[in-house]
Amino acid sequence: MTKDKIRVVPLGGLGEIGKNMMVIEYGDDILIVDVGVMFPDDEMFGVDLVIPDTSYLADKKHRIRGILITHGHEDHVGSLPYVLPMLDFPPIYATRLTQGLIQVKLKEHRLLEKTIINVISPEDKLELGSCGIEFFRVNHSIPDAIGIVIRTPIGTVVHTGDYKFDYTPVDGKPADLGKLGELGNQGVLLMMGDSTRVESPGYTPSERVINDSLDKIFANAPGRVIVATFASLISRVQQVVDTAERYERFVALVGRSMVNNVQMAIELGYLRVPKGMLIRAEDINKFNPGQVVIICTGSQGEPTSALTRIANEDHRLVRIQEADTVILSATPVPGNEKMVHRTINSLFRQGAEVFYQGLSNVHVSGHAAQEELKLMLSLLRPKFFLPVHGEYRQLILHAKLAYSLGTPEEHIVVAEDGDIIELTQERIEMVGHTTSGNVYVDGLSVGDVGQIVLRDRKVLSQDGILMAVLTVDKETGQPIAGPDIVTRGFVYMRDAEELLASARERVIDSLSGLNGHSSDWSFVKDKIKSTLSEYLYEKTRRRPMILPVVMEV
Amino acid sequence: MTKDKIRVVPLGGLGEIGKNMMVIEYGDDILIVDVGVMFPDDEMFGVDLVIPDTSYLADKKHRIRGILITHGHEDHVGSLPYVLPMLDFPPIYATRLTQGLIQVKLKEHRLLEKTIINVISPEDKLELGSCGIEFFRVNHSIPDAIGIVIRTPIGTVVHTGDYKFDYTPVDGKPADLGKLGELGNQGVLLMMGDSTRVESPGYTPSERVINDSLDKIFANAPGRVIVATFASLISRVQQVVDTAERYERFVALVGRSMVNNVQMAIELGYLRVPKGMLIRAEDINKFNPGQVVIICTGSQGEPTSALTRIANEDHRLVRIQEADTVILSATPVPGNEKMVHRTINSLFRQGAEVFYQGLSNVHVSGHAAQEELKLMLSLLRPKFFLPVHGEYRQLILHAKLAYSLGTPEEHIVVAEDGDIIELTQERIEMVGHTTSGNVYVDGLSVGDVGQIVLRDRKVLSQDGILMAVLTVDKETGQPIAGPDIVTRGFVYMRDAEELLASARERVIDSLSGLNGHSSDWSFVKDKIKSTLSEYLYEKTRRRPMILPVVMEV
Repeated sequence: MTKDKIRVVPLGGLGEIGKNMMVIEYGDDILIVDVGVMFPDDEMFGVDLVIPDTSYLADKKHRIRGILITHGHEDHVGSLPYVLPMLDFPPIYATRLTQGLIQVKLKEHRLLEKTIINVISPEDKLELGSCGIEFFRVNHSIPDAIGIVIRTPIGTVVHTGDYKFDYTPVDGKPADLGKLGELGNQGVLLMMGDSTRVESPGYTPSERVINDSLDKIFANAPGRVIVATFASLISRVQQVVDTAERYERFVALVGRSMVNNVQMAIELGYLRVPKGMLIRAEDINKFNPGQVVIICTGSQGEPTSALTRIANEDHRLVRIQEADTVILSATPVPGNEKMVHRTINSLFRQGAEVFYQGLSNVHVSGHAAQEELKLMLSLLRPKFFLPVHGEYRQLILHAKLAYSLGTPEEHIVVAEDGDIIELTQERIEMVGHTTSGNVYVDGLSVGDVGQIVLRDRKVLSQDGILMAVLTVDKETGQPIAGPDIVTRGFVYMRDAEELLASARERVIDSLSGLNGHSSDWSFVKDKIKSTLSEYLYEKTRRRPMILPVVMEV
Repeated sequence: MTKDKIRVVPLGGLGEIGKNMMVIEYGDDILIVDVGVMFPDDEMFGVDLVIPDTSYLADKKHRIRGILITHGHEDHVGSLPYVLPMLDFPPIYATRLTQGLIQVKLKEHRLLEKTIINVISPEDKLELGSCGIEFFRVNHSIPDAIGIVIRTPIGTVVHTGDYKFDYTPVDGKPADLGKLGELGNQGVLLMMGDSTRVESPGYTPSERVINDSLDKIFANAPGRVIVATFASLISRVQQVVDTAERYERFVALVGRSMVNNVQMAIELGYLRVPKGMLIRAEDINKFNPGQVVIICTGSQGEPTSALTRIANEDHRLVRIQEADTVILSATPVPGNEKMVHRTINSLFRQGAEVFYQGLSNVHVSGHAAQEELKLMLSLLRPKFFLPVHGEYRQLILHAKLAYSLGTPEEHIVVAEDGDIIELTQERIEMVGHTTSGNVYVDGLSVGDVGQIVLRDRKVLSQDGILMAVLTVDKETGQPIAGPDIVTRGFVYMRDAEELLASARERVIDSLSGLNGHSSDWSFVKDKIKSTLSEYLYEKTRRRPMILPVVMEV
């Protein structure tokens, strides 16, 4: 690539929420910002995880100078175990807590030895290839979140990461407004900005406002207090711990990821817990209910999480008791509303008092609302603007926001995953498109579940499957056993004997015309398929998958 | 039943949102309020509709004096075509517009001739069996909505139906506060009140506030305006028509249910459309874009609806053009968020300007918020209170609201579908439980899809199916053809030849121990199943449904 250009290729997170991954190229050098994962939506039947398609990088591995991580959330680090091996393990740069979270993850995948993780602090300056790298602290719903500055020879590129401006953060470390102002003064060629919360007017409140709500709830809680939140929301955990301290309660942690994260956050100094306050979950019942706080996972109603198990009377250690107070300190991620509501209903059914967002002020977002987005744009005053981290409508709205602040239309690009954007000091444009999209992780396999398998799963989920199995004489082509009709997920077989018997008749009929000369079994199968499909639709208005199996003897 | 008691049996709508149906019994008389339908959630694979289980009424049909309908929404009338035949067509009582909507529905199902629908007006008084029946007008997101008063010899039962208090309704007919006050003064024994919106503080705004938002959007719309809303939201359609008139635009209707409903509402006098304003959807392109408003269905992102087709460039008549403005005048029903977002993203991608709830004030609810719920309770001052229409948490919150207004705890019952509640003039209590729940409509069949079929569909949707088909000699028990391995939705067969080949080997191995004496095929099948299940889980960490088929020759 000529030395007057920067190329930017989003491989995830543009046109979708999740699996954030941005490729930035200058000359021979490639830098990557974040390698996140996405959780499957309801159309991705049976898929466990979704990772970015990185085939764009397959022939460019030797040019990758590093992976810069903005913070430790799954949608920013979750694909590392899958993508690192594909890219021959380029070095990772991350802040201390982020590094801790990545280590846990890589350990689980037995990739820790092969990986170089460089711990950086927001004040550090690096040289990667021909680019200078700097960072700036931002606020987010996890500590140690940073934005990234890439100083190329032709100009500065700034990636905000996920951010909000919290003037009174729980960890006492507000976003670095000074550095942002300075960057703006020096001149920013391209800004890539988080668009997640662009639909919300005003400011996102400070994490600290949760404090008042917690205080009020704790003051009135007659028994135990159970707080469910994200395991990575260390500041929230801190506030629960602080409130517990004020009300002289002990704290138990429930849920594997909550235990692990809190442990690590304490060790690394990101969480202050008074000595003797933590008790083992096994010992909860040794204390008076009024002395106990339980902090657990499951704020999204995930089926196997601690809170969901508690709600379903299925948890090994915790059962809801009369006078329990439960706080869901999170907002349902779009798509999870029903699961969360189910959990809340069950908790009420067990007799708990339940506080949740909407009813009570028990959660704030970690993303910037409109006024903060304007503040970031006004501080950095970039020449060119590329909205990132959002579905298409959010990218468009963020672009309009920048336009309303004076950025000319031709200086703003709304791009989606796989779009190739190039900029010089004078102009920015979309120059092409590369392979991108969803790679599915299902069980042990990465990438083998594709559109065909998913389409089959969808058909199977709607109306089930019906098989017609048949043994024929190899020589004469005559059926000698069957057809047997077997079905699952279509009708309840015992209730549908008549229907299935006449389906069987249809198969026999459709074979009878063939007498003897049919070794073209694909023709026969097609005939069985269309006969059955038509007949069953007429009788039931359902369209099960129909699978004829012919065995030759 | 003794004459000192009223029995109340909810068959739908308590502990869930949807399929509202309430049975009220006094002496020999049974009255039913509403017979609604529910739309399947994502766990109800392939199900089209969910109707209430009415087996409680199977031996009591001759005692049913009538079905009283509060309003014409699907969750209040949608199960009539399925339930009416089961109950030998008891007479229906409904207001004019409600009756019109029911007629359309019964006509589709060819049940109109068999049904008696009595049109009532809110001022009417009826005698059904030993009970006097009266009504009162309420406001809701459809005109002609009423609450129901049942005067039994031992006291008055009031069912609010769905309601809000709108002091400035678009149709000029506010809720009948006077009647409600009078009822309260006369004494209400039992009130059943809508709990849908109990989680929202304050008041639900008047439908009329939409007017200002529409006006602002129309004033700035350079091209066509496309408004998507519920086909039953006649007041919303009226406001769009009124705004179109002010801006001298013609109106086209798109979407079958929108066309039908608007047609009927005009005929029955519930919608005023200036002469010559309606144009055919086919003629849209004959007008200047600035002269056109399109009102369509699809505000929930339903896959086959007009707006979704338009968004996907798949509509017969309407394509998004540069300068189009689209308004989604509705809120996503929980569970529909992703579909709605997909639609909005696609509309933005086509270049439309899109206004939707959250971003813009283009929808108000039809249900009472907390202050209105308090108002209703304070007007009626019932002795006993039964919250209806809500998931469990909403019923609990509504109960707490009543308690906070002074209703003693033992006068409030939080019940769910199937609970049998009895009350005398002195006390209310839950006395038992009857069959209730979901009956699934799938294609032509009602009730044949049960838990087994749904569980199979769920398993199939997650990891697909793998069949091992085998022909054996009837005499010797020896395999003479196969095993053939066939799979769908599990792995992509071409990529997994090796895996499937060794799965086949396992089947052969598991048969070899049997030599000759195995006509106990269920034993053999179980062995094949467990062998394959273990092997495939080890290799893939997936659990496809495994189906061995053995044919004897």
